[in-house]
Amino acid sequence: MRELTVDLGERSYPIYIGQGILNNIAGLFEKHQLSRKSPMLVITDDEVAPLHLERVMALLREGGFAATACIVPAGEPTKSLAQLEGIVTAALEAGLDRSSAIVALGGGVVGDLAGFAAASFMRGIRFVQIPTTILAHDSSVGGKVAVNHPMAKNIIGAFHQPELVLFDIDTLLTLPSRQVKAGLSEVIKHGLIWDEAFTQWCDDNAEKLLALDPEALSYALYIGCKVKSIVVSQDERENDLRAILNLGHTIGHALEAVAGYGELLHGEAIAIGMVGAAKLAQQFGYDENIHTVTKNLFLKYGLPVSIPAHLDTGSIMNAMMHDKKFKEGTMVYIIPTEIGKVEIRKDVTVAQVRQIVELLKGES
Amino acid sequence: MRELTVDLGERSYPIYIGQGILNNIAGLFEKHQLSRKSPMLVITDDEVAPLHLERVMALLREGGFAATACIVPAGEPTKSLAQLEGIVTAALEAGLDRSSAIVALGGGVVGDLAGFAAASFMRGIRFVQIPTTILAHDSSVGGKVAVNHPMAKNIIGAFHQPELVLFDIDTLLTLPSRQVKAGLSEVIKHGLIWDEAFTQWCDDNAEKLLALDPEALSYALYIGCKVKSIVVSQDERENDLRAILNLGHTIGHALEAVAGYGELLHGEAIAIGMVGAAKLAQQFGYDENIHTVTKNLFLKYGLPVSIPAHLDTGSIMNAMMHDKKFKEGTMVYIIPTEIGKVEIRKDVTVAQVRQIVELLKGES
Ligand SMILES: NC(=O)c1ccc[n+]([C@@H]2O[C@H](COP(=O)([O-])OP(=O)(O)OC[C@H]3O[C@@H](n4cnc5c(N)ncnc54)[C@H](O)[C@@H]3O)[C@@H](O)[C@H]2O)c1
Ligand SMILES: NC(=O)c1ccc[n+]([C@@H]2O[C@H](COP(=O)([O-])OP(=O)(O)OC[C@H]3O[C@@H](n4cnc5c(N)ncnc54)[C@H](O)[C@@H]3O)[C@@H](O)[C@H]2O)c1
Ligand SMILES: [Zn+2]
Ligand SMILES: [Zn+2]
Repeated sequence: MRELTVDLGERSYPIYIGQGILNNIAGLFEKHQLSRKSPMLVITDDEVAPLHLERVMALLREGGFAATACIVPAGEPTKSLAQLEGIVTAALEAGLDRSSAIVALGGGVVGDLAGFAAASFMRGIRFVQIPTTILAHDSSVGGKVAVNHPMAKNIIGAFHQPELVLFDIDTLLTLPSRQVKAGLSEVIKHGLIWDEAFTQWCDDNAEKLLALDPEALSYALYIGCKVKSIVVSQDERENDLRAILNLGHTIGHALEAVAGYGELLHGEAIAIGMVGAAKLAQQFGYDENIHTVTKNLFLKYGLPVSIPAHLDTGSIMNAMMHDKKFKEGTMVYIIPTEIGKVEIRKDVTVAQVRQIVELLKGES
Repeated sequence: MRELTVDLGERSYPIYIGQGILNNIAGLFEKHQLSRKSPMLVITDDEVAPLHLERVMALLREGGFAATACIVPAGEPTKSLAQLEGIVTAALEAGLDRSSAIVALGGGVVGDLAGFAAASFMRGIRFVQIPTTILAHDSSVGGKVAVNHPMAKNIIGAFHQPELVLFDIDTLLTLPSRQVKAGLSEVIKHGLIWDEAFTQWCDDNAEKLLALDPEALSYALYIGCKVKSIVVSQDERENDLRAILNLGHTIGHALEAVAGYGELLHGEAIAIGMVGAAKLAQQFGYDENIHTVTKNLFLKYGLPVSIPAHLDTGSIMNAMMHDKKFKEGTMVYIIPTEIGKVEIRKDVTVAQVRQIVELLKGES
């Protein structure tokens, strides 16, 4: 088992990563002072429920925790105020009190929704993450929780740190292969923004990771969480440094929105976005090699590197205008300066981004 | 103009109280670094709008602030997730960004709803309170913001401190007399829990306050805010001391819920609750005088001191069981030990409270 602390002063918390660690859930809950007296609510979605819920509930019950389950529909539309209201209903019916905890068992959708429920129920109760997707290594660090509004993603939310994160590699074995790849896209991002050696390691270990080799996977998730946690510890509220985590996300989010959530997975969309950022780097005079390495890496992982031709450039640009990263009209853009390093540029023009979007349509 | 600082470290903020201070809104907004570049959203309700909105919008416009108004229906049901969604729509349409502010112009309903919108929009933007009810002196201190769930009041919310509070006594002149009395109930509460001399002053100045005499009103609101701010500064997150602010609220909230929101105003319900707490004090051996003084004070202000006979005791008790103040099954109750002092008791039984509820039905 690997252990990592996300260092946020009073709000610091540990991430446990390893094979079979769910078996010790009761011990870890006890260690982190989760209450056996107050009821607990386990949120999961209807795809994860048949695979992993029963086991988690049984382990909690055996461990003396009074847990009730609440199952939401799988998929991005579940991150809504309507589902939040449903969770609060379940929480009230289960009798949750101020010492209770909400446990998220699932991917980033469940984590973000359950996390916002924990942040706002009674103005904040305790929260535990049990991520079951690779992508959720990302959402399990940093405390960003949110639901969507019909007009904008993640626009209603909070910063709410969990008490602990329990990442059992075994739960990932049921993950569809497309989700595996999309999740690894965000792992690779953590290499690209911070750690050249890890990027190289990702290049060398693609086969192992794609085959969910436990040791490789556990290491990659550890480094992914580690990089994110270093960044977040230095800038919990996204005032400056934290923005580097958005590498590939400006274009990525716009693509997700325009394609209609579902056609492109988040990890796929940001892979395209990272290739775009590398292209932009070229235009700012940085090494061409950045673009080649980035693109080949994503190709190796079976991830898309070009924008589907039928997506309209105008619509993509429009979607970007609603992006939260436009602070007081200025466009903030994350650009790689070498492999493992990025910079936050504030001088990128809309015309430049439009050109990149056009170029990304021809990429292959 | 009176000024008061709510002392919360990094999150400290000033409350300005006085006649005509809205005229200087642009100056105060500038002093507190509200952005002229980013759009601002002013939330108000449809009863306050025709009385005060135009003036506020004009003053902001003249002062160079780009404000858009958003009008919600007046009344408690507006504190809902549905209205929150509507505000977020308005915020997105007005183009709010991370440097924007949401301004609440209205009573506690608008303050709580707009405050939760500010707390959760983009995971938290700036917030300004312009209270237009007496009761809102209470909600303007402490940063508690929330919406209701059909099953429970204030159950979905956050702690989000404003940048400043601008309390213009002139806006109170349009307040219906029943709202004046109900608001003064919460002012009196601040005397009862903390300040014997102020309680005496309230007894001596009832006529002036009920007539909205500017100097008396301004002083009373100042002391009310002051007491609350001292308590909140010592316990921002309601771990212990802050609970004393709930004097009268355990029964009060239950009465509001059972009567159906609207029949009893919040201030009226807690007046009855405070008389109940004084009765309970008697049973714990404290001076009988507490009950007499409390009851006569509320009678003087034209506030109710007994539970309407048609409200069912069983339903009232049931409503209390959903109350957030039941921590891990223990009943926490605030009881006066003398005028101007209270204690937090954790040993009050349901049977004792039921008896008080019965007694309160006979009170007259
Ligand atoms: N809070 C943050 O910091 C942060 C960071 C990145 C992404 N996110 C959010 O995360 C979400 C995406 O997360 P995701 O990719 O995990 O999506 P997801 O939660 O929708 O999971 C993807 C799919 O896999 C299924 N699934 C989950 N675990 C499974 C398992 N073990 N076996 C089989 N199927 C399983 C789910 O039911 C779902 O259909 C987005 O909403 C994004 O905004 C948040
Ligand atoms: N956040 C907190 O700490 C806190 C504390 C106490 C109460 N509250 C909340 O505050 C709410 C009650 O506040 P309230 O009593 O101000 O209610 P309110 O906001 O509903 O206002 C009462 C009525 O007066 C009208 N009104 C407001 N200002 C007016 C004016 N100047 N002239 C004429 N009419 C005016 C409103 O339209 C409304 O119909 C409750 O929801 C309660 O939960 C919150
Ligand atoms: Zn991402
Ligand atoms: Zn109150």
